[in-house]
Amino acid sequence: MQLSLGELAQRLGAELIGDADTVIRGVNTLKDATATDVSFLANSSYRSQLPDSNAGAVIVSAKEAADVRGAALVVANPYLSFALVTQMFDNRPQPVRGIHPSAVVAASATLGDDVCIAANVVIGEHCVIGDGCEIGANTVISDHCVLGRDCCLRANVTLYHDVVLGERVQVHSGTVIGADGFGFAPDKGRWHKIAQLGGVRIGNDVDIGANTCIDRGALGNTTIEDHVIVDNLVQVAHNVRLGEGTAMAGNSGVAGSTTIGKHCTIAGGAGIAGHLALADGVHVAAMTLISKSISESGAYATGTAQMPMQEWRRSATRFRQLDSMAKRLQQLEKSHEGKA
Amino acid sequence: MQLSLGELAQRLGAELIGDADTVIRGVNTLKDATATDVSFLANSSYRSQLPDSNAGAVIVSAKEAADVRGAALVVANPYLSFALVTQMFDNRPQPVRGIHPSAVVAASATLGDDVCIAANVVIGEHCVIGDGCEIGANTVISDHCVLGRDCCLRANVTLYHDVVLGERVQVHSGTVIGADGFGFAPDKGRWHKIAQLGGVRIGNDVDIGANTCIDRGALGNTTIEDHVIVDNLVQVAHNVRLGEGTAMAGNSGVAGSTTIGKHCTIAGGAGIAGHLALADGVHVAAMTLISKSISESGAYATGTAQMPMQEWRRSATRFRQLDSMAKRLQQLEKSHEGKA
Amino acid sequence: MQLSLGELAQRLGAELIGDADTVIRGVNTLKDATATDVSFLANSSYRSQLPDSNAGAVIVSAKEAADVRGAALVVANPYLSFALVTQMFDNRPQPVRGIHPSAVVAASATLGDDVCIAANVVIGEHCVIGDGCEIGANTVISDHCVLGRDCCLRANVTLYHDVVLGERVQVHSGTVIGADGFGFAPDKGRWHKIAQLGGVRIGNDVDIGANTCIDRGALGNTTIEDHVIVDNLVQVAHNVRLGEGTAMAGNSGVAGSTTIGKHCTIAGGAGIAGHLALADGVHVAAMTLISKSISESGAYATGTAQMPMQEWRRSATRFRQLDSMAKRLQQLEKSHEGKA
Repeated sequence: MQLSLGELAQRLGAELIGDADTVIRGVNTLKDATATDVSFLANSSYRSQLPDSNAGAVIVSAKEAADVRGAALVVANPYLSFALVTQMFDNRPQPVRGIHPSAVVAASATLGDDVCIAANVVIGEHCVIGDGCEIGANTVISDHCVLGRDCCLRANVTLYHDVVLGERVQVHSGTVIGADGFGFAPDKGRWHKIAQLGGVRIGNDVDIGANTCIDRGALGNTTIEDHVIVDNLVQVAHNVRLGEGTAMAGNSGVAGSTTIGKHCTIAGGAGIAGHLALADGVHVAAMTLISKSISESGAYATGTAQMPMQEWRRSATRFRQLDSMAKRLQQLEKSHEGKA
Repeated sequence: MQLSLGELAQRLGAELIGDADTVIRGVNTLKDATATDVSFLANSSYRSQLPDSNAGAVIVSAKEAADVRGAALVVANPYLSFALVTQMFDNRPQPVRGIHPSAVVAASATLGDDVCIAANVVIGEHCVIGDGCEIGANTVISDHCVLGRDCCLRANVTLYHDVVLGERVQVHSGTVIGADGFGFAPDKGRWHKIAQLGGVRIGNDVDIGANTCIDRGALGNTTIEDHVIVDNLVQVAHNVRLGEGTAMAGNSGVAGSTTIGKHCTIAGGAGIAGHLALADGVHVAAMTLISKSISESGAYATGTAQMPMQEWRRSATRFRQLDSMAKRLQQLEKSHEGKA
Repeated sequence: MQLSLGELAQRLGAELIGDADTVIRGVNTLKDATATDVSFLANSSYRSQLPDSNAGAVIVSAKEAADVRGAALVVANPYLSFALVTQMFDNRPQPVRGIHPSAVVAASATLGDDVCIAANVVIGEHCVIGDGCEIGANTVISDHCVLGRDCCLRANVTLYHDVVLGERVQVHSGTVIGADGFGFAPDKGRWHKIAQLGGVRIGNDVDIGANTCIDRGALGNTTIEDHVIVDNLVQVAHNVRLGEGTAMAGNSGVAGSTTIGKHCTIAGGAGIAGHLALADGVHVAAMTLISKSISESGAYATGTAQMPMQEWRRSATRFRQLDSMAKRLQQLEKSHEGKA
């Protein structure tokens, strides 16, 4: 893969300051880029690296273009342009078109054109796999699933029955979609299973990481709207709804029947309790527990800030005494007022 | 699947208020139910939906029966009856009996009657698979495992060697049972592995979610007693014991050699440190860290409550000053007493 | 497997106090050991079990040798010697050498001597599998991966393309190495994927647990140095570096581009934010969130200590008022000073 700076500028809609014939063969950081790499400046804290970078060209915004030593590709949103460039130089080995002879595909399944079905894939009865879909090795798709066009399930993914994906949905390895929600009725010390009768509905352009779980609904579906992105090891419980464009980072989780609005960001390790509603544009900080509904957009947090262990122990001990401290403070104030 | 209200009442031991001949074809929420659905009221916060529900019948307790617009199925525990009804209307595609030709089953393995062994399953030497067991596609069962009757392992499950399951154990996809516990002896900056010589013993009627890990014991077994339920992405370390009827929710974890009593509930994202003992009937709140043993039943928590980020920052800053604040408060009190 | 105490003492470099001809057939805890078992005392809190132990021999340090009822194996580091003994008595079923006929191995892949390739394994184009490697059933190794000698991947592991493992690397089931990092550029409410062009480089003698995720780099590699140990359900994001001898326990996670030094320990459920640097010898407590870089070795923590729920509620309420409390305390002090 190689592109001239002229071609690159055209594809990005960038203003090129430099030689349009320079050949670019890759993309790299300011620090590691060589003369045949394009680099980028999207975070001003890396600005000090501009003068020393050997990059063949740097993607920058207008206000930083003057600082670029070599060629500059001037754009409105450098990080977006960087994303587009990485896609141009994507070096992932391409899967083989067709159905590997070891795959086990039910006779009642319908496969679209130009699909790639890798070794040991299992596809159940009445599945519909859209045109251009890629199914990685050892992935299992259970009965009655529907995949829109150009979906990509990597190796060792599991889809339970009645899971419907839109178009261009990416699912990474180890992820399980449609397992039973955690629903049980307690009675006399035993748990009686609530059969999970719903399914999972995932929109278009959704990207789901590795070893993540998206459970099927108990009654009705678990729903993930268009343009949602979900990282690794994320728990999405039954009957949850994730609004359009929302992002959930690694190790986060959301409990049953909670609705998260559009364009929310749930940071790593955060947890959202069940049966809540979060408004659009809510940002939950890392390792925060949300236990009440949120009706206003904005950022929310729980927890404390990092401390050396010895100091933390003292604060943690005092936290247990906080109510007493508050009452003693009130007492002093009262007594002080009495004297004033 | 369809049932008359008369049959349904009989199966649930319910008192029917309404027409016994009404035909029910499904189960749904109060809000979404139609005339051929049965619904339920188990949580009084949904009581306001009763008058508007179009459900063909509603499962309720005696004290709410009068509010049901149509037919009512009156029972002592509506949530339990709802669970039983979902089981009646379970629509999961049934697995195919027999052994798929692509499965790789060791000659020394013993398979019970009426088993379902799906495509690409691998079963190791000397395994014993009980009558009626269902093993999902691409699942691996290593040597010397024993499954009691009517166990169900979904697709892409992994059992290491010497894992013993009781009867009616459910294991969801991606779950790994019997991997090595995290045991290493440090010496001169290196970690020396402690071979994990124990196994895993799981009782009857245990339900385990997706992408969960239950490690084998170092010496002796990791033990899960009867009627335990475990959600997705849960970590159960080596030599843990989970007491009868205990529940662990998603993203929770328990470290090595800890014993959890009977009928405990560990909420989502909670963590229990190693080498502890928790009494029966302990309830651990979401995202709580338990670092000391608990000898009395009851609910326990750590952490703080959610706040808008700006306010949280101020409290978090003060938390670091708590010990100083406490000492200054004492000083003021002392000085005040001196004057009084 | 059996060893005389004389042989055992020789292998461990231990001083034997007892009969060298005593035969040992296993290893067990002080409490459960019988006359043919060797046991150990590595944690002084178990010292009270010494007098009652029926162990055939006990591994102890010199200062506790006098308390052993039967034979003693006296060593400098009993826990290390225990680790070595468990390795001697490891009873894991040995994998079958050779390539199972159901495995799908690309013609361009190179397999070393004495490899074990189990059923339904898939190995991609141009992979190089070192001598003595063991690949468990249903594991998928994508194109261009390199495994050093004596690596062991258990069942249902997934390696994406361009993942390089050193020698003697252990990877447990369900773990995914090389999935795409969670990198997206936001623009007008949509996420534009940053193709993840880097790979993963893992050193020698690394041990990785089950259902863990180690993402590939965006530009450049995610790097795990020699002698690192990683537990189950751990998230290692793109472009992270884990320094030599570092340990990460279950359910912990580290976000993108963070560098963790050598010989650090990250306890269970802890989270490390992105773009940070942690010095060598940093210890992060369980369920702690590290959100700033750490330049000095030592232990760090966040959070609060466990409390009964009712008491916790009062402290949590006061935490929200902490800034106000601090200001009122200052006010009182000021007023007090004014009077003094």
